[in-house]
Amino acid sequence: MSKFLSKKYQGLQAYVPGEQPKERKYVKLNTNESPFQPSKKAQELAKEQLQKCMLYSDPDCKELCSLLAKKLGVGTENVIVGNGSDEILNFAFMAYCGGETPAVFPDITYGFYKVFADLHGAKKTELPLREDFTVNLEDYKQAKGTVFLANPNAPTGLALSVAEVEELLAADSGRIVVIDEAYVDFGWESCVPLIQKYGNLLVSQTFSKSRSLAGARLGVGIASREIIEDLNRIKYSTNPYNVNRMTAAAGVGSLLDTEYFEACRNKIIANREWTAEQLKALGFTMTESQGNFLFVRHEKIGGQELYLKLKEKGILVRHFAQERICEYNRITVGSPKEMETLVKALKEIVCER
Amino acid sequence: MSKFLSKKYQGLQAYVPGEQPKERKYVKLNTNESPFQPSKKAQELAKEQLQKCMLYSDPDCKELCSLLAKKLGVGTENVIVGNGSDEILNFAFMAYCGGETPAVFPDITYGFYKVFADLHGAKKTELPLREDFTVNLEDYKQAKGTVFLANPNAPTGLALSVAEVEELLAADSGRIVVIDEAYVDFGWESCVPLIQKYGNLLVSQTFSKSRSLAGARLGVGIASREIIEDLNRIKYSTNPYNVNRMTAAAGVGSLLDTEYFEACRNKIIANREWTAEQLKALGFTMTESQGNFLFVRHEKIGGQELYLKLKEKGILVRHFAQERICEYNRITVGSPKEMETLVKALKEIVCER
Repeated sequence: MSKFLSKKYQGLQAYVPGEQPKERKYVKLNTNESPFQPSKKAQELAKEQLQKCMLYSDPDCKELCSLLAKKLGVGTENVIVGNGSDEILNFAFMAYCGGETPAVFPDITYGFYKVFADLHGAKKTELPLREDFTVNLEDYKQAKGTVFLANPNAPTGLALSVAEVEELLAADSGRIVVIDEAYVDFGWESCVPLIQKYGNLLVSQTFSKSRSLAGARLGVGIASREIIEDLNRIKYSTNPYNVNRMTAAAGVGSLLDTEYFEACRNKIIANREWTAEQLKALGFTMTESQGNFLFVRHEKIGGQELYLKLKEKGILVRHFAQERICEYNRITVGSPKEMETLVKALKEIVCER
Repeated sequence: MSKFLSKKYQGLQAYVPGEQPKERKYVKLNTNESPFQPSKKAQELAKEQLQKCMLYSDPDCKELCSLLAKKLGVGTENVIVGNGSDEILNFAFMAYCGGETPAVFPDITYGFYKVFADLHGAKKTELPLREDFTVNLEDYKQAKGTVFLANPNAPTGLALSVAEVEELLAADSGRIVVIDEAYVDFGWESCVPLIQKYGNLLVSQTFSKSRSLAGARLGVGIASREIIEDLNRIKYSTNPYNVNRMTAAAGVGSLLDTEYFEACRNKIIANREWTAEQLKALGFTMTESQGNFLFVRHEKIGGQELYLKLKEKGILVRHFAQERICEYNRITVGSPKEMETLVKALKEIVCER
């Protein structure tokens, strides 16, 4: 840290991304990436942009936003795209938290919410999940502030129904509810249709998981025209050309290739269910994950221990030190082959006990 | 605007990028883009990343930063990359302005400095350039706050020497000076070597102009280890994967292809000088621009009028409404053919008078 850094950031604890070790080739099941390549159509359209990169990208990303709006059944004025959904979330924390408005989110959720709140000097109201990691809706109905709910939640994979989210939106129309749908495509239902009825809803989605574009960085915000105007005001005061040419084109290609998208996500869902059965047979318990990951524990093996034993065997999973979940590990659903390798390794670890 | 938007952003005036009209094909000389395609090597390396985009990019961009450090003659710990240099500048405004520290910059300069200052609630000290648009160094030596100087400046193209910047750095080691070198490659000298001696210097550079990668979005910050740590703390609290895979690879490719880089910038410099001569012969006056643009006026034709007449003829240049420069236009140096078209159009406009 330099002596010049603004006081407000001197105590800031930055986000720690999942490890990306280079010293050894791992089966990487720690950052919820897709095991499948981006759609050929996405690759092809992105490639066409390479020779045009001397020209700025379209700051409005009109083609991408029109297509997104059509797919989502909303207007173009209801859509904004960003450099990953982290950027959309960052804009939302800027626009709607701070001053008298705290950020409200579960004690166990995407670790970045806490960082964003701290970054923008917003108070945090962290509401504990129930013992079984489900959200107690009543807590959120009563809490004052802007609500951030990952739905399905990470790392638990548990989700609220659209009806429950609607109940929350209706309970207090005077505050924003942000529903972070990073994992919604793996079998859950989206809250996007609710934006037509609720002016206090912002939904964020990402191309990183179900669309295999984590490395291209593309996120989406969907909300009322007014909320999108707010977010655009911040975007145009931060980085108007926030989405580059290749990524915008890859997004278009991915949206055009519905068949591949469906095939990939169906494979991941099927593979998740297969892996869950195998792990249950080995004595693991887990949440009913709706994401592209499983959140598992074993009563005979500590969470940290399991993480380390898997790492020894060349498999990376995500372990969180946080007290309530430190006996768990979050395991990304990879390819069938990767899951077989995982199951084999877990079998060995369990049998050693 | 929604009723939810935080009070602090309700009066915010966002940045307005140069127009990108779609209704007609223009000779586009309004956003200082390069007329040359990105290096083949850049395109090739970016293309290789397309099929790997299901995996997150390296948040540290190690390969790119190492190569940059080597090229710049600094350590890897002295370098950070961002989603365009706008992102680096945004981080710098966050880290070093606000509270008791105003942002100090010229009245005529890159229009985004004002927006960044407003976005982060920093006071602004806008110091008037001299009548001839040069920077009066004494003003800056005495001013309190974090200094932002585009060098060469935009839209004037005028620049301070490294010796003058050093004088400024030495005058007050207790505050940060940010030197924005977006246009430095078109014939000016870089202040990067000064970071070894001055812990209060941050230099920003971009791949958008001289490296033909505006549409890929890649910017660089170069400073002491401590300043880079500050900026990384903000980056890791905002968007750790801020640079996508294709763009990081394109950056590497561009740096490896020195020959193409030199050839392109030399052509632009030569073309700038040729165009300047042609325009002078037509009665235009101009600053001694060191950028990839000319900043010109004609005593018989108003700035706004010239802009409109060129637009009618299918040529887009940049006109600023700001009082002190409203008789000028900023004209990007494009390809020889584009410059011939420009000169021909200007000749017609001048002859009509």
